[in-house]
Amino acid sequence: MSINIKEINKTEYIILRLLSQGTKSYWEIMLETFDSALNTIQSLKKLMQNQIIVYQNNTFKINSKEILKEVLKTDYIDVKCRECEGNCFSKQSFQEVILKFREIIKDRPVAIPEFDQGIVTIETIRNRINFMYYKGDLENKNIVLIGDDDLTSIALVLTNLPQKILVLEADQRLVDYINNKSKSLGLDNLKAVTYNVEWPVDKNLRNSFDVFLSDPVETIQGITLFISRGCSLLKENGVVYFGLTHLEASLKKWYKIHKNLYEMNLVITDIIDKFQLYELNPDDIVSKGYRVFTEINLDLPKPEKPWYNSAFHRLELIDKPNPLFDPDKEYKLERELYYDEEAFVTLY
Amino acid sequence: MSINIKEINKTEYIILRLLSQGTKSYWEIMLETFDSALNTIQSLKKLMQNQIIVYQNNTFKINSKEILKEVLKTDYIDVKCRECEGNCFSKQSFQEVILKFREIIKDRPVAIPEFDQGIVTIETIRNRINFMYYKGDLENKNIVLIGDDDLTSIALVLTNLPQKILVLEADQRLVDYINNKSKSLGLDNLKAVTYNVEWPVDKNLRNSFDVFLSDPVETIQGITLFISRGCSLLKENGVVYFGLTHLEASLKKWYKIHKNLYEMNLVITDIIDKFQLYELNPDDIVSKGYRVFTEINLDLPKPEKPWYNSAFHRLELIDKPNPLFDPDKEYKLERELYYDEEAFVTLY
Repeated sequence: MSINIKEINKTEYIILRLLSQGTKSYWEIMLETFDSALNTIQSLKKLMQNQIIVYQNNTFKINSKEILKEVLKTDYIDVKCRECEGNCFSKQSFQEVILKFREIIKDRPVAIPEFDQGIVTIETIRNRINFMYYKGDLENKNIVLIGDDDLTSIALVLTNLPQKILVLEADQRLVDYINNKSKSLGLDNLKAVTYNVEWPVDKNLRNSFDVFLSDPVETIQGITLFISRGCSLLKENGVVYFGLTHLEASLKKWYKIHKNLYEMNLVITDIIDKFQLYELNPDDIVSKGYRVFTEINLDLPKPEKPWYNSAFHRLELIDKPNPLFDPDKEYKLERELYYDEEAFVTLY
Repeated sequence: MSINIKEINKTEYIILRLLSQGTKSYWEIMLETFDSALNTIQSLKKLMQNQIIVYQNNTFKINSKEILKEVLKTDYIDVKCRECEGNCFSKQSFQEVILKFREIIKDRPVAIPEFDQGIVTIETIRNRINFMYYKGDLENKNIVLIGDDDLTSIALVLTNLPQKILVLEADQRLVDYINNKSKSLGLDNLKAVTYNVEWPVDKNLRNSFDVFLSDPVETIQGITLFISRGCSLLKENGVVYFGLTHLEASLKKWYKIHKNLYEMNLVITDIIDKFQLYELNPDDIVSKGYRVFTEINLDLPKPEKPWYNSAFHRLELIDKPNPLFDPDKEYKLERELYYDEEAFVTLY
């Protein structure tokens, strides 16, 4: 080991600390770092090249305990709350809603990576409901979603709390699915409409919602477009919820995205890291050529449990909405909407 | 009750939802709303004037259940994790540190409201340690604090994790106290120095710390000055932790403060609301003429448990620090440092 302790960066420290407890899979490491997939891969490669860690039997392990003595002053301390898994909210609340939701969506359409779809876990949907209710953003509220492959709208309406829910969705299968469920379950306050985020915003819908929820693409232009559209739909003092990862967005990218949000008169009130977990299709991860799989250049197994995660953001308008993309205009971002050099779990 | 349901604002809704569970004290309501003390008081007054709630036997209660039927679609749902009380982190971790800390600081100097001092609970100190450790900001790090009436520096050093801790503190009693403890306990990596945030920043200390922690005053100028000073002390990619309340800072103020942070090349990575609870002296609250006590204009009892709370912020530099206040210069903010029109628990 030729590496100097001073050369160990934050992400390498997080990896070594994690491995000090025992072997971890590649996907477990992706879940636990606070860095981009790119930087996490570079850290893993550097640690392997310096023979500090090795990859064996589908897991990473510490090669020599010597390095841990230098890097760690203590054995790993498990600080997260085990009850709520560090997400602050109960795993018991809204139990009936969750059971009903799970039953209702059994025949859901499968996610299409071409639309950058990737659905969150049911536990994440419970967390969203918990948090939105806690913040007073659910009961009697008019809620609009742009993109709803998660079918969160159905779970929200099953709480019987919102006044009205509208889903704007580009995937016609999902529009039909949600409208059919709404009809068959007699949920007359849930409706879905075909809408592509590049289209202008319907004049009748503008400035008429209390809450906007989305899980947008992670390019700067793309996410700014999604939240601009949401902004145009909100009343004064409306609320925005969305997820943003570290895995596909460096802090420099977060910075630029956040700056755009403040330009729109939004202020961040809450950011809960790793609040959202995703059920990405393990076969797609392996077969679709995602950079998160190819660039580590190891014989990786499929992920066995959720690893892709995002930080849940809540924002409020402090004044009238000031969308950066003009609601009257159509924009053609095309490939730029979905893809940038930090995209590691996104198709070209 | 002449009030129309549409006239119930968010904070009034939060209050009514809370009271639907039973009577609550003024201080319990202050703990649970997400709004300023000013707005919370206005909401309470409006609800009382409209005879929706009444104040009796030192508590607020719902005057008529009729209104709840209109405002609430469900009985109150307790969504917070009971184990960690919604703070994401274990109440068991770092147990030895906390016990030792509690013992060591028994002879601490009392807080002086004139310095805007208000110490956090021991549980909050545990939460800070948990969160900083979780984020990789404790082990082997050089940490600097501006203001430390909480004595967090002593708790941090007791973890044996940081490399070095420096406290910059205006109150000479605290400087002496921390240095005496450091000497008597043989903690040679903890040191305190007399420093007023208005003074220039020592050239030898600039750009030499990994982490800055503070619990600043809440005027825009004041908090920007504190974090500017912290910024000057940080290395590139350094980390900032601080608390900001809703009680004394409207979202418009949050917005302006956050904008200043982004100007300094900081990006917000986490905001956990109500993460920090404070042990304000109940007698001071009653006797010092704070607006939170006087403006409600009721015969209030002293608070019986912590109610003053703040949202813990974590930020990272995405580039070199760009402090808005010049580290070479002295600034004289005087009264403006501590006091603005939103100050409700702050002396003139």
